[in-house]
Amino acid sequence: MELQLRLLRLIFFFLIILKHSSSARILTISKPDRHDYAASARWLVSQNIWGVLSTLSIDYEGTPFGNVVSFSDGLPEKGNGIPYFYLTTLDPTARNALKDQRASLAISESPIGTCKRDPMNPTCSKLTLTGKLLLLDERSEEVEVAKKALFTKHPEMMDWPKDHDFRFFKLEITNIFLINWYGGAKTITVDEYLQAKLINVASFL
Amino acid sequence: MELQLRLLRLIFFFLIILKHSSSARILTISKPDRHDYAASARWLVSQNIWGVLSTLSIDYEGTPFGNVVSFSDGLPEKGNGIPYFYLTTLDPTARNALKDQRASLAISESPIGTCKRDPMNPTCSKLTLTGKLLLLDERSEEVEVAKKALFTKHPEMMDWPKDHDFRFFKLEITNIFLINWYGGAKTITVDEYLQAKLINVASFL
Repeated sequence: MELQLRLLRLIFFFLIILKHSSSARILTISKPDRHDYAASARWLVSQNIWGVLSTLSIDYEGTPFGNVVSFSDGLPEKGNGIPYFYLTTLDPTARNALKDQRASLAISESPIGTCKRDPMNPTCSKLTLTGKLLLLDERSEEVEVAKKALFTKHPEMMDWPKDHDFRFFKLEITNIFLINWYGGAKTITVDEYLQAKLINVASFL
Repeated sequence: MELQLRLLRLIFFFLIILKHSSSARILTISKPDRHDYAASARWLVSQNIWGVLSTLSIDYEGTPFGNVVSFSDGLPEKGNGIPYFYLTTLDPTARNALKDQRASLAISESPIGTCKRDPMNPTCSKLTLTGKLLLLDERSEEVEVAKKALFTKHPEMMDWPKDHDFRFFKLEITNIFLINWYGGAKTITVDEYLQAKLINVASFL
């Protein structure tokens, strides 16, 4: 009888481990207070590793051309809110931006795993950062920030082909469009966004 | 002793069920042959439920404005390849399109769960459909196709507020940009894409 009890305990032990191992990521990530719009926007940028970067197409007569790209504003607890990109001029997005800098980056809460409703339900956050996609000067200090931000979050970038003319870009943000609850887009200035205290983000990780 | 054996069998039975329940989606979805570009593109559209729809911003002086939206081309085995949307004119994307129809829809393989590398690695497929975002006539036959496609994949849309002026739109595709392996964008005509046999898609589900 004692042995059976031990076996039963063993079953429960295994079940608990399995349950928690599969949902560990969800358990450790929760959203900032939805009333703190700047922190919510910074959290989306910090937690996501890819988004869609839109530029004005040279090839398709000025059509807005969205392209799936990886990005980084730094490691979660050290991000500065500025999205950096590692783009090749073999790809239309970089070429478009070199001709016309107007661009936007759109990201969703969906890939983070904290969204329980339809991706277009307003409680499932989404963010569009509008601005200018700028090529960083290879000799600037900021290019080192960009490189560190990108290569720590996307380590395989370090091995991407050297002859593919990959360059570091950043999105200089001019407008912020955030939906993180009912009631339409939330108003955040670029200053509020950039100055949002990282502790607001990091404390929820 | 026999009871202990039964308990051990019970443990293994539970473990097998748990293992398979958490990875069931991955096990039942695999990608089409990467050399079949049209089927690969149709598969990405068929399997994804959201993407980023880019339009030319009225508010931000023609800047390309990407917006996270839900879409559907029909249920997986019945999709027609045409992305349909349910957009409110309270949102900038619909308003932009009513002024200038030029638009694109960008989607990634990442949300499907079959991509094992960085989202920007060429083996992680991505697709941009470029074209015109058209408002569907409420009395047309196509609006019924759109409604069925959207409401079956996104059932909560049926309960979205009736006073928010939601309308059915479609992307009329003019160009297709697919990356599903090394070597740059793959060439697919719109006809090849629309005529891709559904069996090519459905057989992999």
